[in-house]
Amino acid sequence: MIYLDNSATTKPYKEVVEAYATVASTYFGNPSSLHTLGLQAEKLIGESRTRIAQILNIKSSEIIFTSGGTEGNNIAIKGTAYSKKSRGKHLITTTIEHPSVFEAFSQLETEGFDVTYIPVDQQGQIKVRDLEKAIRPDTTLVSMIHVNNETGSISPIEETGELLKKFPHVLFHVDHVQGVSKVPLDLKKAGVDLCTFSAHKFHGMKGNGLLYVREGVKIAPLFHGGEQEHRVRAGTENVAGIVAMAKALRLAVEKDTSHLDELRAYLTEQLTSLEGIQLNSPAQNAAPHIVNFSVPGTKPEVLVQSLTKSEIYVSTKSACSSKLSEPSRVLLAMGLGEKVASSGVRVSFSNETTKEEINQLMIQLKRIVPQLLEVVHS
Amino acid sequence: MIYLDNSATTKPYKEVVEAYATVASTYFGNPSSLHTLGLQAEKLIGESRTRIAQILNIKSSEIIFTSGGTEGNNIAIKGTAYSKKSRGKHLITTTIEHPSVFEAFSQLETEGFDVTYIPVDQQGQIKVRDLEKAIRPDTTLVSMIHVNNETGSISPIEETGELLKKFPHVLFHVDHVQGVSKVPLDLKKAGVDLCTFSAHKFHGMKGNGLLYVREGVKIAPLFHGGEQEHRVRAGTENVAGIVAMAKALRLAVEKDTSHLDELRAYLTEQLTSLEGIQLNSPAQNAAPHIVNFSVPGTKPEVLVQSLTKSEIYVSTKSACSSKLSEPSRVLLAMGLGEKVASSGVRVSFSNETTKEEINQLMIQLKRIVPQLLEVVHS
Repeated sequence: MIYLDNSATTKPYKEVVEAYATVASTYFGNPSSLHTLGLQAEKLIGESRTRIAQILNIKSSEIIFTSGGTEGNNIAIKGTAYSKKSRGKHLITTTIEHPSVFEAFSQLETEGFDVTYIPVDQQGQIKVRDLEKAIRPDTTLVSMIHVNNETGSISPIEETGELLKKFPHVLFHVDHVQGVSKVPLDLKKAGVDLCTFSAHKFHGMKGNGLLYVREGVKIAPLFHGGEQEHRVRAGTENVAGIVAMAKALRLAVEKDTSHLDELRAYLTEQLTSLEGIQLNSPAQNAAPHIVNFSVPGTKPEVLVQSLTKSEIYVSTKSACSSKLSEPSRVLLAMGLGEKVASSGVRVSFSNETTKEEINQLMIQLKRIVPQLLEVVHS
Repeated sequence: MIYLDNSATTKPYKEVVEAYATVASTYFGNPSSLHTLGLQAEKLIGESRTRIAQILNIKSSEIIFTSGGTEGNNIAIKGTAYSKKSRGKHLITTTIEHPSVFEAFSQLETEGFDVTYIPVDQQGQIKVRDLEKAIRPDTTLVSMIHVNNETGSISPIEETGELLKKFPHVLFHVDHVQGVSKVPLDLKKAGVDLCTFSAHKFHGMKGNGLLYVREGVKIAPLFHGGEQEHRVRAGTENVAGIVAMAKALRLAVEKDTSHLDELRAYLTEQLTSLEGIQLNSPAQNAAPHIVNFSVPGTKPEVLVQSLTKSEIYVSTKSACSSKLSEPSRVLLAMGLGEKVASSGVRVSFSNETTKEEINQLMIQLKRIVPQLLEVVHS
């Protein structure tokens, strides 16, 4: 099996699954319970929080544990919009966000919020001066993806954070889900107020994530109930999943990822030499683990299925919208045209991906792509 | 260790943890991915959905997987309130709901919804005719706990469901979290439209639950994003947790629970014979696995801590609010008075609880309670 769909989800590390199983079996108390079993569970959460805070260079009190990236993005965006609505109802984002950001904003528009979508160029880059022009006195939030989940383009987070220092009434949310352990982001230095993480994108468990909420930032909860997570996120904590996430994060950031750049350059070069293929990932400001390309005129599902037969797993667009046979919203936003946007294929590496696996992928592509093109031209 | 806090959380079954670990390690694909690994994960979810539907006697399309009971209650209540608000903004619940229901309604009140709280008697029972009188043309929802999480009192779900057949504009939500496998509930027969389940209350994993949404019922989502769960609950599915939940539910409902009634009667009798103890759980219409009592005048935390030293684990009130040193909202609502409501202790059985464990508990209570009372009287 050659797994090249790591942006959809990653295989959890063996030690992470083991840690999960041990905690779930042995420290099964409810962290809110007052007895020893409850205190043990609470202690495990506290230790995980401290470890994660150290890795991310933030305070442990700035971490809200969630059920994943979609929840994190929804809480950050709606939580800010609702809590600041008496101040203003204008929000800013970009045209290349993940569905959980894009749809959260669409929902807020139906509720009377005004959303500005900053456009990107063919490299998936916004112009920070466009963003600056869009800021109004009633703007309360800028939300931006760090590493785009379809193309790997890296947004100018630090530059935006620097700009937003001039606008203290505007909170800055970053969707860092695809960046963790691959494209470093210093939250404090970049002036980020809210930041979303998802455990299963860095070899942790599905159903776990965290939201960084800078000290002093108040957001409205989506779930009401218990006292957990500073009342921003009620509900019994997923203790085992949290411990597993802390472990996965440590292991993921400890890995040397320097070879990924080379791997990406190698795949890019190979793809470029293949007739009928157009590269969609930008050459610059791009993450080392995502390569997006199109075979214009063909159906990307067919390519994905053909590769599946050789046990090579890649994807079309965002996993969260891959079952819709619509063109990629992200590639369209980059101005690549309907034909390219309807045939995008994403290859995404983990730290374990090898050159040999890329060679295997290329052998199959060299076989499949001409066949697909023959159908198109016939 | 004598674990008598099963209403806070249960120890996951060994087979359930094993199933979780196997799925997490082997079938780690994103169920939304189009390749084999994705399809395998999707198939596992589909099979779990079918199994759960069979057990609950509902359609598999009526299941929405969630991150737990708090999320389920929040989606059901806010989702109904928001989706029906053009029809009406009046909602009905009771005074003895779980915090995740109570606080969801409190939040809706701040948003302009009108909520009627039906009172209960000293047995924790509402009068269905009170509920009937409260229904207005603009009522859109009745939400009721099935088995109260603090006292075990059983609400008249079937009678309420029967009544609500006369009011087709009113949806009926039931919080069944504490009832699963202990107090059967036939959702179709009882005319329930929405019903909340939490996996870790029936020996599944924390961070998993499900919401039954009757076919034809439309609710607004809290998370926006991907296409998952009929768009009512976006986000990558927790595949391993869902498979584990299906397994836990099957194992839990297969167990013979007939001995719990006897165990409850035994503990009740023993407690009654102990001076200074007042029983709070009702004698009738009560679940077999929860016994709530007070030692009026004493602090329940002290009793919990004393028992902890003997490795006996019980709780004060709802785990979700146990860290607040306020009287129990539920016991107050039952009219038991501040003194009783401030000293409630909950003992909750699993199917594995034995008479010998109850004897051990009583030995300790016979030692501790007189000491506590001595402090009160001195």
